[in-house]
Amino acid sequence: MSQLLRTRPATTDAMLAVFDDAATLRHALAFEAELARAEAAEGLIGAAEAEAIAALCAGIALDPAALAGEAALAGTLAIPLVARLRRALPEAAAGSLHKGATSQDVADTILVRQIREGQALLDADLARTAGALAALARRHAATPAIGRTLLQDALPIGFGLRIAQWQAGIADAAERLRREVEQGAVLQFGGAAGTRAGLAGRGAAVAARLAAALGLPDAAPWHARRGGMAGIAAALAIVIGALGKMARDVSLLAQNGVGEAREPAIPGRGGSSAMAHKRNPTGCQVALSAALRAPGLVAGLLAGLPAEEERGLGGWQAEGPALAELFLLAAGAAEAMAVIAEGLEIDEAAIARNLAAAGPGVDIGESEALTESLLTARPQPFAR
Amino acid sequence: MSQLLRTRPATTDAMLAVFDDAATLRHALAFEAELARAEAAEGLIGAAEAEAIAALCAGIALDPAALAGEAALAGTLAIPLVARLRRALPEAAAGSLHKGATSQDVADTILVRQIREGQALLDADLARTAGALAALARRHAATPAIGRTLLQDALPIGFGLRIAQWQAGIADAAERLRREVEQGAVLQFGGAAGTRAGLAGRGAAVAARLAAALGLPDAAPWHARRGGMAGIAAALAIVIGALGKMARDVSLLAQNGVGEAREPAIPGRGGSSAMAHKRNPTGCQVALSAALRAPGLVAGLLAGLPAEEERGLGGWQAEGPALAELFLLAAGAAEAMAVIAEGLEIDEAAIARNLAAAGPGVDIGESEALTESLLTARPQPFAR
Amino acid sequence: MSQLLRTRPATTDAMLAVFDDAATLRHALAFEAELARAEAAEGLIGAAEAEAIAALCAGIALDPAALAGEAALAGTLAIPLVARLRRALPEAAAGSLHKGATSQDVADTILVRQIREGQALLDADLARTAGALAALARRHAATPAIGRTLLQDALPIGFGLRIAQWQAGIADAAERLRREVEQGAVLQFGGAAGTRAGLAGRGAAVAARLAAALGLPDAAPWHARRGGMAGIAAALAIVIGALGKMARDVSLLAQNGVGEAREPAIPGRGGSSAMAHKRNPTGCQVALSAALRAPGLVAGLLAGLPAEEERGLGGWQAEGPALAELFLLAAGAAEAMAVIAEGLEIDEAAIARNLAAAGPGVDIGESEALTESLLTARPQPFAR
Amino acid sequence: MSQLLRTRPATTDAMLAVFDDAATLRHALAFEAELARAEAAEGLIGAAEAEAIAALCAGIALDPAALAGEAALAGTLAIPLVARLRRALPEAAAGSLHKGATSQDVADTILVRQIREGQALLDADLARTAGALAALARRHAATPAIGRTLLQDALPIGFGLRIAQWQAGIADAAERLRREVEQGAVLQFGGAAGTRAGLAGRGAAVAARLAAALGLPDAAPWHARRGGMAGIAAALAIVIGALGKMARDVSLLAQNGVGEAREPAIPGRGGSSAMAHKRNPTGCQVALSAALRAPGLVAGLLAGLPAEEERGLGGWQAEGPALAELFLLAAGAAEAMAVIAEGLEIDEAAIARNLAAAGPGVDIGESEALTESLLTARPQPFAR
Repeated sequence: MSQLLRTRPATTDAMLAVFDDAATLRHALAFEAELARAEAAEGLIGAAEAEAIAALCAGIALDPAALAGEAALAGTLAIPLVARLRRALPEAAAGSLHKGATSQDVADTILVRQIREGQALLDADLARTAGALAALARRHAATPAIGRTLLQDALPIGFGLRIAQWQAGIADAAERLRREVEQGAVLQFGGAAGTRAGLAGRGAAVAARLAAALGLPDAAPWHARRGGMAGIAAALAIVIGALGKMARDVSLLAQNGVGEAREPAIPGRGGSSAMAHKRNPTGCQVALSAALRAPGLVAGLLAGLPAEEERGLGGWQAEGPALAELFLLAAGAAEAMAVIAEGLEIDEAAIARNLAAAGPGVDIGESEALTESLLTARPQPFAR
Repeated sequence: MSQLLRTRPATTDAMLAVFDDAATLRHALAFEAELARAEAAEGLIGAAEAEAIAALCAGIALDPAALAGEAALAGTLAIPLVARLRRALPEAAAGSLHKGATSQDVADTILVRQIREGQALLDADLARTAGALAALARRHAATPAIGRTLLQDALPIGFGLRIAQWQAGIADAAERLRREVEQGAVLQFGGAAGTRAGLAGRGAAVAARLAAALGLPDAAPWHARRGGMAGIAAALAIVIGALGKMARDVSLLAQNGVGEAREPAIPGRGGSSAMAHKRNPTGCQVALSAALRAPGLVAGLLAGLPAEEERGLGGWQAEGPALAELFLLAAGAAEAMAVIAEGLEIDEAAIARNLAAAGPGVDIGESEALTESLLTARPQPFAR
Repeated sequence: MSQLLRTRPATTDAMLAVFDDAATLRHALAFEAELARAEAAEGLIGAAEAEAIAALCAGIALDPAALAGEAALAGTLAIPLVARLRRALPEAAAGSLHKGATSQDVADTILVRQIREGQALLDADLARTAGALAALARRHAATPAIGRTLLQDALPIGFGLRIAQWQAGIADAAERLRREVEQGAVLQFGGAAGTRAGLAGRGAAVAARLAAALGLPDAAPWHARRGGMAGIAAALAIVIGALGKMARDVSLLAQNGVGEAREPAIPGRGGSSAMAHKRNPTGCQVALSAALRAPGLVAGLLAGLPAEEERGLGGWQAEGPALAELFLLAAGAAEAMAVIAEGLEIDEAAIARNLAAAGPGVDIGESEALTESLLTARPQPFAR
Repeated sequence: MSQLLRTRPATTDAMLAVFDDAATLRHALAFEAELARAEAAEGLIGAAEAEAIAALCAGIALDPAALAGEAALAGTLAIPLVARLRRALPEAAAGSLHKGATSQDVADTILVRQIREGQALLDADLARTAGALAALARRHAATPAIGRTLLQDALPIGFGLRIAQWQAGIADAAERLRREVEQGAVLQFGGAAGTRAGLAGRGAAVAARLAAALGLPDAAPWHARRGGMAGIAAALAIVIGALGKMARDVSLLAQNGVGEAREPAIPGRGGSSAMAHKRNPTGCQVALSAALRAPGLVAGLLAGLPAEEERGLGGWQAEGPALAELFLLAAGAAEAMAVIAEGLEIDEAAIARNLAAAGPGVDIGESEALTESLLTARPQPFAR
């Protein structure tokens, strides 16, 4: 049932692993285990029951395909998962499992943990890209090149300024994503109607413990308040768009009639099944393709914001697949651009030739100062 | 690397099978085999070479994960696939493989064959739904019920008219999809630049044979002319929207304060991990969730229409995953609504009670005639 | 309060006139007048009252700004409009006005009539474009040019084949739009809950007369069944995408390093406020900009399909502005491309030079036959 | 040519004024005037010329319709505007006008100033809404009500918790918008190719003066780096979605079979052209309609991010209309929700009756503490 041939070309193995079934189950089991421990610590269930639950969650082998089929029927993964865990537990522990929680608590916790892992993974490739581009921008800051506007030759620019603009776009987008994830990917624990009922008034304390154990900021329930998820989705699409901007330019610069820059040669990359000599901008293709797919995924999340009452019907259920897809696309684009940034072949002779042919002289204005300003004026998230 | 826990709840096993890796490879191999046979029939390659190719395509075992990784690097599946086939063939046959074809010929052929299989599968569930709704509409055509507009009680309607409107929307959408698939899901065979070069002037004849063998309408190459794909995508989203319309109404009618209709009770469906007594409209959730996700997928295809020159960079590569996703979502929604249409629980007492409480009398106007007109005036695709 | 500086650059005066306030009011008044006449003909209201209504509708001067403000409050134009008309009528006629109709009947009738006018207007520019492209394609069918795939030089094509592909995409899209408008832009007349109540069983007869008078196909009410509108929207976006495809190619061919074709020189078009010598592909810009804006507008209509019960809350109200915008964008793109198609400057020397530089010879395969096949195989809507 | 009947019902007069032609021209003229002053202060043009330019810009009467037509041809407003100003100036001043600037500098400056004015206007209505909701939430914090999940009765909640969730969603969204505007709506001044050439090395100094005079943060040129605009667009859609969430709930609560809350009665609002007694949730309609339209507008901006080289073709030109539309929709939704928040009719008897009918008791868990936590834990932007 896998669709690797459609998903893999657009992403990386590492990001696929963040969102695959094994990871999803791992986060679901962590939620149930840590919830039990937190509730035991607050005296809501017995310590022995909590340890039985945690031990089971640590050791149980689950069949994703079977669970997926049952989840399709039930409408949520938590129902068949909790049923399975209960059957495997002694009666007292079975009754203590999932206490005060609801399906969406599990689903959202899975999602926010995957979001955090995905963001960290992505950030590393964005940092690689931004770092490599900064070096390139400085190296070529004073190189006069023809600037192009509306796809026509215009006036000279410093070639490095073009690259610094790519870098700034990517760095800004990475920063926005970081902020949205920090604010939006937080604990979800509210119970059936989001009131933390049935916990003897210890709900807030359980939430605090659970958040700490899961490595998430504590938060009030947000079952039907999904702006944070939409913010993360939009930030991902802007990251993808910033990578797509760089890809657009590289693919235009690599045209045979231009030839100012091209992707590094990599064995297995960018060939043609019909023309052996051709060198296709395949890395750019990955980013540009992602940049076409991402906007609609964001639109879907935005359209779901007016969720019904305490927990909506259809909206939040649509978010997980779309956010996963956005991370997959972002990862594919980021890795492709990182490789290009680190190996971009720049042809100074072609740059000079094109500029001379255009004929507007070599006055690059304040390109050098603007290049430096773009590279230094913004927060340096990548200096880690 | 599978993501069944995210994809399966929104779709059916049967539709997943249409788009999974095994099916994708099957179609790719069929393309290469039938291309060789067609070219042999036209005297472009030897008959023995063609049979060697066809035999290999029929028998070879391929590892989707490995191919997917290589396809990610190459930018297309055809490159590693053709390389693998060539390594497994005698030299003469290796040279005859994939003759005059390009990667996109393979990719688009895979896609259009999956589209046709997907449409047939979907059509069956849409027909079930439409048939069951037509029967329900006639049964309740004369039942006075309160009509609701802008979510407020308005004037009486025949309860069957509401159902006939669902049916008409679904039937029209199914018809549009059928037409778009018939016109858009056609042979792709153009070679590297879409001219059918290298085939000694026999390109059109090869195309005709290939189309017949693959069960596709013959067509001129459409590598960078993607309106047909966009039309299919939009038609799928309209199907999903029509199913979503029914789901919206059923979920509103099933509210506790309304109670006029609800999904049939199905073991394992619509429970709650927190409230055992609750009966959630989980089938409606599937369709409503699909109706939120589909529009953005269509937008992505539409955005890719301005493809670059003879074969674009990024646009068509974004279509396959989006079209597959649309079929998966449509299948999930269609099956959910088929089950509901066939088992919808209608509470006549609640209908009467709500109408009486609203107080506008029982004049249902021309509801019965409109019901019959809606059910009969349109093409009856479902009478098969 | 006008926003001409933002809307006009993307469209034409003629299409603006189809959707402006005067046209909107004209269609609304025609609905009320023809409804009264149809009802008088069926004996539901007096003939004198009908004529009083028709006379008023023919002569009344209305202030769009005041009506717009009241419509904003009321939620629909019909409420303040009907109130105004009633105040201007004798009592008997006032009571006969708008009989059996609802606000949405008026709103949808306005919309479908504007759609039909818009489609006719658009079709004329699409026909101009397709006609001019067909001539160009034939003229350059045998001219060898370098084909480009993934933005890289690939193999030779006939230059006319490239143009024939543009033509075919536009012709197919125009045909889809024609079909969707024919099927979807139909009479809306259902009354408050869509049952045609309060018309003494003469609703169907009134509808038939009203449809004939308004020049629309008769139809059962479709207040909450909006697939037809979504189909029209999608067809418009595909038209825009097909025009955008041509624009993408022209803008790429017009690059200084390519120079194979460019927009005709038109006084006032494509200059630069900073560089007097520059010739910008401004017509292409209009179409490419439209192609970026259209997909999201379609997504909005698709997202509104799951309308609530008999007449929805928010969904159909979102359609009118989006459909108007799509027609405006399509008109701007179509006119821009018509001008380009009719005046495209093709530089045969540059074509030959680029092909020679690429070096793959001059075998254009079956380009000529494919060109002719593309131009003749499809319905010839443009032969009118 | 106006389209008030389509635009006005979705927005407010005040926001229309922010984006109308008069405002657009005012900002364009301010740009040219302040640029001249800044350049005179840096010694790049004469002081007398600067004052002549500024005086002309302060006094000239321009015809938006004529300019719009010429802008449609030229591809940008700046070209006909600058030409007109030059014709009205003495020769020396004419030569000093628009020095070192490009059309896009003008267009983006207009846009960012309108964005800032629009955000301030919107913020006021969001603050009204949030303030009124906070008071309502506290007043009803302890009122037990039935919570509803997946559109089914679930467990009790404090009625105020539901309202606090609305408030928190709106407050968070307003905060995100504020931040995005602060960071993204900044000076655009780069000249033809974004290098500030032709300014004798005083470009940065001119930019600083110009930014200060226009009340904008100084910034390096961002002609083809549009993430900031996309961030603002997404933030607007999330604001609209948060308002739509409140609207969704109010419209569901106002259903006849629920009756827990409804919009305040306002003369002229929410009537029916067919049923005089009906009270439609027309304010909710405005917000829900906006929530359907906004996502696609955002998708359009996101799709344009991969802009070509120094200044793109089609992408940034698509942004202005979409951002204007988003502000118009947000304003309409915000004002509608402010009125509802300040006048929401809550029926405590219906709340109690529905809860009793549902039967799950009155345990509202930690609703009160969560209500207070939601209202106080976040930044209080509204305390101004």
